[in-house]
Amino acid sequence: MKLVPLAALATLAGFAAFPAAADEGMWTFDNPPAAAVEKAYGVKLDAPWLAHVRESTVRLETGCTGSFISSDGLILTNHHCAEDCIAQNSSEGNDLVAAGYLAGSREKELKCQEDAVSVLVSTEDVTAKVAAATAGIAPDKMVEARRAALTKLEQACEEASKKAKGGPLKCERVTLYQGGQYWLYKYRRYEDVRLVFAPERDIAAFGGDPDNFQFPRWCLDMSILRAYEDGKPAKTPTHLRFNWAGAQPGDPVFVSGHPGNTDRLLTSAQLQTQRDKFLPFWLLRFSELRGRMIQYSKTGEEARRTTEAYLNSVENAIKVRRNQFAALLDPALLENAARKEAALKDAIAGKPGFEGTGDAYGRIAEAQQVWRRILVPYTFIEGGAAFNSQLFQHARTLVRAAAERAKPNEQRLPEFTDARLAAVEQGLKADAPVYPGLEALRLSFGLERMREWLGPDDALVRQVLGNDSPDELANRAVQQSTLADPAARMALYQGGQAAIDASQDPMIRLAAAVDPRARELRKTFETEVEGPVARAQEEIAKARFAAYGTSIYPDATFTLRLSYGAMKGWNENGTEVRPWTEISRAFERATGEPPFRIPPRWMAAKDRLDPATRANFTTNNDIIGGNSGSPMLDAKGEIVGLAFDGNVHSIAGSYWFDERMNRTVGVHPAYIRAALEKVYDAKALLAEIDAK
Amino acid sequence: MKLVPLAALATLAGFAAFPAAADEGMWTFDNPPAAAVEKAYGVKLDAPWLAHVRESTVRLETGCTGSFISSDGLILTNHHCAEDCIAQNSSEGNDLVAAGYLAGSREKELKCQEDAVSVLVSTEDVTAKVAAATAGIAPDKMVEARRAALTKLEQACEEASKKAKGGPLKCERVTLYQGGQYWLYKYRRYEDVRLVFAPERDIAAFGGDPDNFQFPRWCLDMSILRAYEDGKPAKTPTHLRFNWAGAQPGDPVFVSGHPGNTDRLLTSAQLQTQRDKFLPFWLLRFSELRGRMIQYSKTGEEARRTTEAYLNSVENAIKVRRNQFAALLDPALLENAARKEAALKDAIAGKPGFEGTGDAYGRIAEAQQVWRRILVPYTFIEGGAAFNSQLFQHARTLVRAAAERAKPNEQRLPEFTDARLAAVEQGLKADAPVYPGLEALRLSFGLERMREWLGPDDALVRQVLGNDSPDELANRAVQQSTLADPAARMALYQGGQAAIDASQDPMIRLAAAVDPRARELRKTFETEVEGPVARAQEEIAKARFAAYGTSIYPDATFTLRLSYGAMKGWNENGTEVRPWTEISRAFERATGEPPFRIPPRWMAAKDRLDPATRANFTTNNDIIGGNSGSPMLDAKGEIVGLAFDGNVHSIAGSYWFDERMNRTVGVHPAYIRAALEKVYDAKALLAEIDAK
Repeated sequence: MKLVPLAALATLAGFAAFPAAADEGMWTFDNPPAAAVEKAYGVKLDAPWLAHVRESTVRLETGCTGSFISSDGLILTNHHCAEDCIAQNSSEGNDLVAAGYLAGSREKELKCQEDAVSVLVSTEDVTAKVAAATAGIAPDKMVEARRAALTKLEQACEEASKKAKGGPLKCERVTLYQGGQYWLYKYRRYEDVRLVFAPERDIAAFGGDPDNFQFPRWCLDMSILRAYEDGKPAKTPTHLRFNWAGAQPGDPVFVSGHPGNTDRLLTSAQLQTQRDKFLPFWLLRFSELRGRMIQYSKTGEEARRTTEAYLNSVENAIKVRRNQFAALLDPALLENAARKEAALKDAIAGKPGFEGTGDAYGRIAEAQQVWRRILVPYTFIEGGAAFNSQLFQHARTLVRAAAERAKPNEQRLPEFTDARLAAVEQGLKADAPVYPGLEALRLSFGLERMREWLGPDDALVRQVLGNDSPDELANRAVQQSTLADPAARMALYQGGQAAIDASQDPMIRLAAAVDPRARELRKTFETEVEGPVARAQEEIAKARFAAYGTSIYPDATFTLRLSYGAMKGWNENGTEVRPWTEISRAFERATGEPPFRIPPRWMAAKDRLDPATRANFTTNNDIIGGNSGSPMLDAKGEIVGLAFDGNVHSIAGSYWFDERMNRTVGVHPAYIRAALEKVYDAKALLAEIDAK
Repeated sequence: MKLVPLAALATLAGFAAFPAAADEGMWTFDNPPAAAVEKAYGVKLDAPWLAHVRESTVRLETGCTGSFISSDGLILTNHHCAEDCIAQNSSEGNDLVAAGYLAGSREKELKCQEDAVSVLVSTEDVTAKVAAATAGIAPDKMVEARRAALTKLEQACEEASKKAKGGPLKCERVTLYQGGQYWLYKYRRYEDVRLVFAPERDIAAFGGDPDNFQFPRWCLDMSILRAYEDGKPAKTPTHLRFNWAGAQPGDPVFVSGHPGNTDRLLTSAQLQTQRDKFLPFWLLRFSELRGRMIQYSKTGEEARRTTEAYLNSVENAIKVRRNQFAALLDPALLENAARKEAALKDAIAGKPGFEGTGDAYGRIAEAQQVWRRILVPYTFIEGGAAFNSQLFQHARTLVRAAAERAKPNEQRLPEFTDARLAAVEQGLKADAPVYPGLEALRLSFGLERMREWLGPDDALVRQVLGNDSPDELANRAVQQSTLADPAARMALYQGGQAAIDASQDPMIRLAAAVDPRARELRKTFETEVEGPVARAQEEIAKARFAAYGTSIYPDATFTLRLSYGAMKGWNENGTEVRPWTEISRAFERATGEPPFRIPPRWMAAKDRLDPATRANFTTNNDIIGGNSGSPMLDAKGEIVGLAFDGNVHSIAGSYWFDERMNRTVGVHPAYIRAALEKVYDAKALLAEIDAK
């Protein structure tokens, strides 16, 4: 259940409109559901408990969650959250994804080129400051004005943190409740992250794509990383301990993590755009890409190895999108949205200060018409779907970085503000391998589909392809580009606009050629869709606060949240699903072939393992992609599980939370213990985790 | 625009409910729109005109239309309609799809293994007989009873034709107006069809998939076949002549052919099933299959050649399905259906004999709930999507033929009645090549998706896959099966049930293993979906006749129809589209790379060609897939075009006819003449066509 970045759509995220139901919600740490938790489970979430959990939870900047589990910076997360790192440390004949990895000593811990982890240190409500800076701004100027205000606030925050104790910090803008609140979230960031332990993928992802989002499951979806500072293991005195026995059915369970994105209260008009336009368009493209990659994987072991991680992420995303689509086709979902809209309109009818709010839904619906019209070209050109390639991503970053860095900070695209440049540079410097075969496949696919959907006579299509076939252009650009080399990228980055202009690198030239049209589409999106929607959403958000107070939680935004619930199964078509599995069944279910193969090390260890060892378990916590790797905690704040998935019903959680069906799936601590102790013989690692 | 068999869905086809609008309709020859044509265009469609056109039009049993164009059995049709035949006559190093083919002499005309053509000789209304045989039958027994009655009628018809002049004939059941009428259609069939001429695919399908369903176009989408009888060219004194000058804008144009399937008046409930379940499920699967085939094609020239025809058909079908899906997402379409339902209910309200008809819509809606529930397993198992393979198709045919032939004729599945056995045997005997690489790809894909959608723990999935991966099972079954050999197939066919039981062929064993579950699903479909829907549709059809008389036409059923209209462009977003193209633009548009490559022979002939020669043109005729290859005729019944496509708006013609936008695209006769005369130097062929 990997976080799938929703690109532009994320900016159209929804908000929660009714007070939350039992066990529902992804709550910010400044507004925890303390009363509801005490009432339901008799557990007091006091300030020390919350602070301990917050400081022990980390965000993986690649889209997951983890937690500190030792005083020397050990991080527990999922295998699938570390899979890029594991794959990038593999090579032909040394496939760590397949074989697993145990460093054994700190010298052998392997650098993750693209990872960084962040700990939320504090937060600051800047709603009033943003309101002051954007007062009276027209909807079409709204995005620009808000961006400039937030960039200034971030900049001031980072400057201040440099002089303060515990600094410097990363300061990030956060929009909650669809513009009802603006915050600065302040993070301590670790940019040196290394791989300590990973099991074989066959056991980590036992059942593979067929079992993804299913339960019963038997996945040891874990890995252990370590944060470093100044070349040494980071000191993390605040960290979590394990409760190896785990939870029992009915026991309260808390999940702390970074859910990526929910759309719980998009308006009906927005939900219809998702259902009719965005999701079918996305699913058609990625289904084909999946087919291309599967077939390519069969051409040889190297093709298989180099494609595996991206293919897994695409298959995961397809399952999510497919079930989101199914959820939206349930008429009850749209009716529910319409009912909530009507209820809010009723609640504010005739109230002073909300005269125009009823009309806000209509303005959002109008903006959807523009969005529907530009969605396809926007996705291909500004969204980059036509240029599906890591090399092109680098090229676009370089082309835009040169142009943006020449501007004053607050006028830049938000991804190139001073606060973001460190992350931009980390990405450019990362010595992650680029696989030419996979690159050419992805780029050729993107170009061919652009030509299909925009038509061969579209001006940009003709400009890009000329007399080339998609394969010709893709193969040439991948072969001739030097951007796989971090040094070449950094030279272009440091050379600025002059270096970009002089570069003959075909990816740079391609990115430069499409940039004017891409920016034009982005401008249209911002002025005619995002801005008017943002203004309307702010008005609706104010009405919601007025009607429902703080009994509501914001949509997920890949920021720290707490969810509460209990270990619990569910009823599937009349059958009660037991909320845990035992490892014996995995051995029975194994076929010897992927994705149902148990690694040799486990087969050899079988007799040493208690067959009743609990493997995976379910709770009714309200989580979503991005929560992958989240610690699942008991009332004492000890780890009773490692969240790695939801059941298939949890996917509808993008749009609503159905407590009867929506379940979180976690790795049981007993499974982790048995693996480290009896299969991998990871004595030193266990000693570090067990140390008082 | 190839006919895409709609499998089970075809049995749920709709009916036309309102009187037709201007130039709308696919009319049966027994109810031609003579008055409307005379009024609109001043042309009298008298009996001799209709008989001449009917006898000159042929149905290609593989899913297209053609027409006789000489007295010795020459047939004009599309290149894409003959592409399987052309590919099957190709071999490594001798790719006739790429190179084109001109027989030059009759001895060199190449046998099409799987083709047969049929001419409609007469028709007989058997509605009253079917009504008598199914009176009082409960909805769940309806399909069985109707099938038995129609099988008996067919059998009696064929027996009688053997003794009559001009016999024997093939007698086929036809359901029109969704059960409002039942007919026997009687055909003269030619089972020996040979390839005479085909241009290079690069010019036949210039623009390829990107241009498919687009206009302007420049495709020479033609081929010429010949019907044989007793090893000699068939005598076809009734045939069509060319009007080489073609039509001018506004001139009346008639299309005679076999439109495959329309769903013009599915009920709202049925349309929603198409939109929400059938089409997304289909599109996801075939998009991935497309990706797999594209990638496989890149592994080598032989892979490319052997995959091309099936890939083309899949890409064509994807474009159709995608645009059908888009059409169904237009709220106006569903509103229109609901309005028509309400209008018919009003028209019959309180009329004696129609007391239960208003309720018929509700019964159809109930049956949709069952259909939605079983659609996925039905499609994979009975529909065969899990076993996407020619070898498996043969195996299922053999397994079922053995079981069915042991039953009395009227109790058999309709595809194995005595009247159908000749076609079954032709399919088994056909010496069409089977490409193991493509077979394994398709089968592995089907198995993997079955496991995905039904789940790895589904009983049939476990039974079929056991401990195999989809690749292992597919590769082994394809490698070890003997069913690529027509002799092996015929031995099993002739050996009956004993031979099937004794066979160790892995495809036979697979087909036998899944047959019980497949038949069970089919039974559920017939008793709980098809039967109740058929009963309800009959009632609705009767109400429609009562309300609207003969001013209505039935949905397309791959039977002979006449459509009328005129040469005409349309207005695309404010731009008038000129209704023809000229060949000069094709040369300008060529890039040298597929799908925009002009063959060397055409490049060499360029100076001999008049650049203003008309290439393709558009009319507002109401046609659909299956009409591919149809002759387009002027008032005198002479050929002024060869239908090969529609514009993109024509795809919505599955559900309604929008005269403002829906256009037929044809090859201009001047293009055909120029090609045969100046590019291919086909003197003998032209002489035969020109002979008085």
